[in-house]
Parts: sequence; C-alpha cells; structure tokens
Amino acid sequence: MTRYKAIISYDGTAFAGFQTQNNQRTVQEEIEKVLTRLNSHQSVILQGAGRTDSGVHALAQVIHFDLNGVRDVERLRFALDTQTPEDIAFRSVEVVAEDWHARFEPHEKIYEYYLEHSPIRSPFKRHYRAHFRYSLDLDKMRSALTLLMGEHDFTGFTASGSSVEDKVRKISQAELIVLDDENIKFVFRGNGFLYKQIRNMVGTLIKIGNDRMPVSQITKILESKNRKFAGPTAAPEGLFLKEVIYHG
Amino acid sequence: MTRYKAIISYDGTAFAGFQTQNNQRTVQEEIEKVLTRLNSHQSVILQGAGRTDSGVHALAQVIHFDLNGVRDVERLRFALDTQTPEDIAFRSVEVVAEDWHARFEPHEKIYEYYLEHSPIRSPFKRHYRAHFRYSLDLDKMRSALTLLMGEHDFTGFTASGSSVEDKVRKISQAELIVLDDENIKFVFRGNGFLYKQIRNMVGTLIKIGNDRMPVSQITKILESKNRKFAGPTAAPEGLFLKEVIYHG
Repeated sequence: MTRYKAIISYDGTAFAGFQTQNNQRTVQEEIEKVLTRLNSHQSVILQGAGRTDSGVHALAQVIHFDLNGVRDVERLRFALDTQTPEDIAFRSVEVVAEDWHARFEPHEKIYEYYLEHSPIRSPFKRHYRAHFRYSLDLDKMRSALTLLMGEHDFTGFTASGSSVEDKVRKISQAELIVLDDENIKFVFRGNGFLYKQIRNMVGTLIKIGNDRMPVSQITKILESKNRKFAGPTAAPEGLFLKEVIYHG
Repeated sequence: MTRYKAIISYDGTAFAGFQTQNNQRTVQEEIEKVLTRLNSHQSVILQGAGRTDSGVHALAQVIHFDLNGVRDVERLRFALDTQTPEDIAFRSVEVVAEDWHARFEPHEKIYEYYLEHSPIRSPFKRHYRAHFRYSLDLDKMRSALTLLMGEHDFTGFTASGSSVEDKVRKISQAELIVLDDENIKFVFRGNGFLYKQIRNMVGTLIKIGNDRMPVSQITKILESKNRKFAGPTAAPEGLFLKEVIYHG
C-alpha cells in the first residue's frame, strides 16, 4: 500500500457537498468510484482536509488515499483527472508517509467569498458569486472584519445543533478586497472553521455593510454565543476553499 | 406601439441557441414569454442582431421588440431582467424609432473566442472556455490571422449547405490576445459572419498553431472555397458575442 496526497479543484454547483451522503452526488463518492477501479476494485476510502457544503467550490482541497502497488504520480494524476467527471480536476498527486493525514496534520485553511455587488447580476457568475444589489459601506465591513480577527468562541456563527464541542477557533486573516467596480471578495485564513461559520460571518457582514446592523454586532454575537444575533447564512455559491496550508 | 432596443447578456450553456426552435429551450422563446405577459398577453416577436448557436454565449446581444403603451425604460429593464430566467440579463433598454431593426441596421459585430491552453482543464471554466492541452505556436496563429483580415468569400469556413447566397464578408479585426499563462482569446470584428464561420476559423487556427497545417492553409481555404480544407469546428463554449456596433 502507498499513501497519496492529492490537490483537487471542483465546481460545487452540481454536488451535494464534498462528503458522501446516501443517494446524493458528492465529490468524495465520484472520486472513490475511480480510485476503487484503479485499485483492482478493492474499495478505497479517501479523507479530505475539510468538508464543503452543497454548492461550495474548492480551488485546492487536499485529500489522501491508499492504493495498492507503486505508481508513477504524474500518470496517476492524469488518470484521476481524466476519469473523474469534468467538474473535478486533479491538480497534483504526491506520495506521502503512511501515517500522513489530510485532516489531522496541523494546518490552516484559506477561504474566499466572492460577492458581485451590482444592480444587474451577471449570468456568467451566477454559480460562482453571491449577488447583492443594495448599498454597502465597505469601511464598516472592514471594521467588523477586524473584530473577527484572533481567537474567539465562534458558537454564535455556527449552525445550531452542531456536534463539535470545542468551538474556539483562531482567525489570522480577515480581509475585504475590492476586485473591480462590481466585485469584492472576503478572505479568511484560520486554523479551522465551524459548520457554516464563514457563510454566517459573511451574511452578518453584508447586514452591517447595508447598515441594518451596527459594527458592534460582531462583539455581541461572539460574547453572547447566540446564533440569533447573527445575519442570515450567505449563499453557498460565493464560497471557495482556496488553500490548505500544512505546517512543516 | 413603441419599439424598444435592448442589450442582453446570456449564458448559452443551457440553451439550444438564440433562435426559437420547436420543443427546445431558446433565448428568444424565454424572452418572448415574458414580453407577451408584459404586453397584456398579446403575442410579441423579438428580433436579434444575430443568432448564436447552442452553447454560445452573449455579453451584449442586441434585440428589438414592440410593446403596447408607453413605459418607463428602467422599470421595463428591471421587469425583464428579474422575470427572465437567471441565465439571461437585461443590461439596458431604450426607445428607438418604429422602423429601427436590430438585424437590418448597418452594424459590425465583435466576437471573442476564449481558449484555455493548459495541461489541466479548470472545472470552473468548462462552460466558458474551450480547452487545448497540446503545444501552440502563437506566432504562426498570428500570421494566419492576418490572412483572414479584409474582404473575402468565406465559403470554405462556413457549414456546407448554408442557404445564404452572398458569402463575401469583411473582417476588420482578427487578433490573438494572451490573457495569462493559461488563457488566450481571439477577437474578430466584422460586418457579418456566416454560420459557424468563427468556430471553423478557430478550429483551423488551432491546427495551424499545433503545426498540423501550414499558415498558408488559410489562403488555400479562402481560394478553394472548400470546407474540407479547413480544421474542425471549435467547441461552442469558447465563443462570446461581445458587442454589436451600429453605424450612426
């Protein structure tokens, strides 16, 4: 057996998320079908660095899996890239230690959230940008982003009923970048994000930018740990897992 | 009755082209359904500056149509933008003379053809770029483009069986632009293009760039008027109607 690490991209539009679910099309399942075929039909289970929800995209998700025998990594990458559906791409494949683990190796993740801020929604971006047609005060949103920086208990920004116990996470980057007259993006870097945390943060930031919540609402949500004080969950199509950065 | 000119964008992916066809989803039909509703259910037929094929996109197609009564153009634009499906956008609407005609007013069209030239196809661009993974000599393609410039009989570049009689057209711009390491685009401006002409020109240019046809093949195709000498029809998803420029 050899363990491989792969970096993949996928367009989340037609997937019910990354992780296998009964009777739904998922990224994991589509890749495992091909891996199992390449593994002399012995079942292969892959592990991803993180899960992404239905409609959420990945520019560079990291996965690992074990295959029998020894293979040329570029030929393996090509086989996986061409045999998986066209909404999944294999960007790289490398051999790693047998105990290397995409999820448990210490890492940070970078997510980007793209928002088209214009009166007319572009038909070409409807699956790859959220859309907001009303006014946004970018300075207020930037002030709110600084309040999200650092180590906090993010319970107020996660979906209620989440089973994770420790909800303290550290955000080391929280930025708003103006791409052009009609497009902005948020960049979040951190040691982990809770279920729907980023989309709930973005939904709150949009409310603040539109002057329907004060900047101080961020502190209120963090301190109260109450999801009810946060804005709505922003649409999934704006969210991209940009990079997984392993330490060492 | 008032005549309106509108500039629209559409993502061609899920359409069987612009023009109405029996039992197929087309841009024209989707818009006419909404126009007819807005016109007290009296049937409205629209005219477009040009037709685009199945899978071909438009950044700025121009159409005209007549509606009863007098309307505020921004309210009309908003109604059309929001009531048509999300793969169609209404960018602008204005009142024009009763005899103004999107197709018959003298005009030039600009088309752009996007090609992702990389070993790995991006999942996000699969509906908006053609893909070519093998080598391309851009200088040879540029030389071939200069041979396409000017007034020619483009019979050899159109689909055989086309019913148009006069196949002389004038190309005033034929350029190759490098967007980044993995993306190029072709820009074609002319007073009209024949059925599949641009995709057949691009298919030929790719053959020339990949050294499977000489640059002089362009002259051979133009002079012989024989479609058999041209390359294959390039994929529709790379093609965008960029702009329609009316004279005067």
